[in-house]
Amino acid sequence: MIQQREERHVLTEISTDVVFFTVRNERLCVLLIQRDKEPFANYWSLPGGRIGREETLDAAARRMLAAKTGITGVYLEQLYTFGGIERDPRGRVISVAYYALVAADRAPLIPERPDIRWHEVEALPELAFDHAEIVAMARRRLASKLEYSTIALQLMPEKFTLSELQAVYEQILGEELDKRNFRRRLQGLGCLEPTDELHRAGKHRPARLYRIKRPGRVEIFK
Amino acid sequence: MIQQREERHVLTEISTDVVFFTVRNERLCVLLIQRDKEPFANYWSLPGGRIGREETLDAAARRMLAAKTGITGVYLEQLYTFGGIERDPRGRVISVAYYALVAADRAPLIPERPDIRWHEVEALPELAFDHAEIVAMARRRLASKLEYSTIALQLMPEKFTLSELQAVYEQILGEELDKRNFRRRLQGLGCLEPTDELHRAGKHRPARLYRIKRPGRVEIFK
Repeated sequence: MIQQREERHVLTEISTDVVFFTVRNERLCVLLIQRDKEPFANYWSLPGGRIGREETLDAAARRMLAAKTGITGVYLEQLYTFGGIERDPRGRVISVAYYALVAADRAPLIPERPDIRWHEVEALPELAFDHAEIVAMARRRLASKLEYSTIALQLMPEKFTLSELQAVYEQILGEELDKRNFRRRLQGLGCLEPTDELHRAGKHRPARLYRIKRPGRVEIFK
Repeated sequence: MIQQREERHVLTEISTDVVFFTVRNERLCVLLIQRDKEPFANYWSLPGGRIGREETLDAAARRMLAAKTGITGVYLEQLYTFGGIERDPRGRVISVAYYALVAADRAPLIPERPDIRWHEVEALPELAFDHAEIVAMARRRLASKLEYSTIALQLMPEKFTLSELQAVYEQILGEELDKRNFRRRLQGLGCLEPTDELHRAGKHRPARLYRIKRPGRVEIFK
């Protein structure tokens, strides 16, 4: 129907790449896959692939995650579409990037393999294609959303201490926060409630465990 | 290079659509083009078209605007990528949508024609494809950015009164604002400076004209 498309060599490919965040040992981590072929053989890369003809963009991103991790029902949101002309040496590939968040207590459910591993965002290896740029933008988006949403709660296990939550904020923002200001801001959000339980770690004073107040964890946000 | 692409009928088309905002008579407006052929013949639609093989996404969006309006150097930002499977009855078309803002005093430079016209966002005709959804999302994005940025200043002429600026905010947010709170918030942003000039309108008391403080208007923001 559109004349310019007659010739095969002018085709543009459309794919999706997913930045999958979790928190492990109080560190913000992202899931990477080591490529086994050219281009960028042996480089680490984001899970991704081609968008199916009969598939929405969201469904494609969810499919990539399920295929690589077995995990479903996570917070998933479109990030940005990357269309640099030479981002893939094989030809023009436009990537609709997504980011997803998995709670810290669900991350261990993903079986790690030598070629599929969580990497600390602060210590990434060199990434294939423009994936470093995609990860950097996902982190900025996450940081900007901290200002006006409860998005970071998606990364927390069912119960957690306020210190653990602060550590997650600090990881995403890449800076230390004042404990008193942080707790005041949290209070303002009104989305946490204390449990009856205390968490004991080392020689520290036991800390109250909190959980997310109604309506329960948002599993998928569109 | 990728086997599934061998057959022409499985192709996915990629295009861009641009939501071009301005303010006219204190009303938030969007530029629409009346389609002259099927599908959606005679419906109003967003300026848009196919992304060139050797063209970045940003460049394609800027090209659409320049072609339809003759205007260049406006604030332009990627909005979201729309990939509904049946959004175009001719076949699968994924659209990387952008939004752009043109200052109120530059909008009249765009020659209006019967088939290219500014429409008030509050009184849109029925739009082609999923363009109503795209406009709605662009407006939400603009509204959410008002909270933490000076983006609305891109819509203002060189000099303007605080009442005019408040009217623009109210248009984008779709609600009335308290004058005193609005001015306090503006003060906090610290991005305006008074000029020596007063604006006289009707029987009202003359109002001080303001302009944007350094570094001058941001013409293109990436």
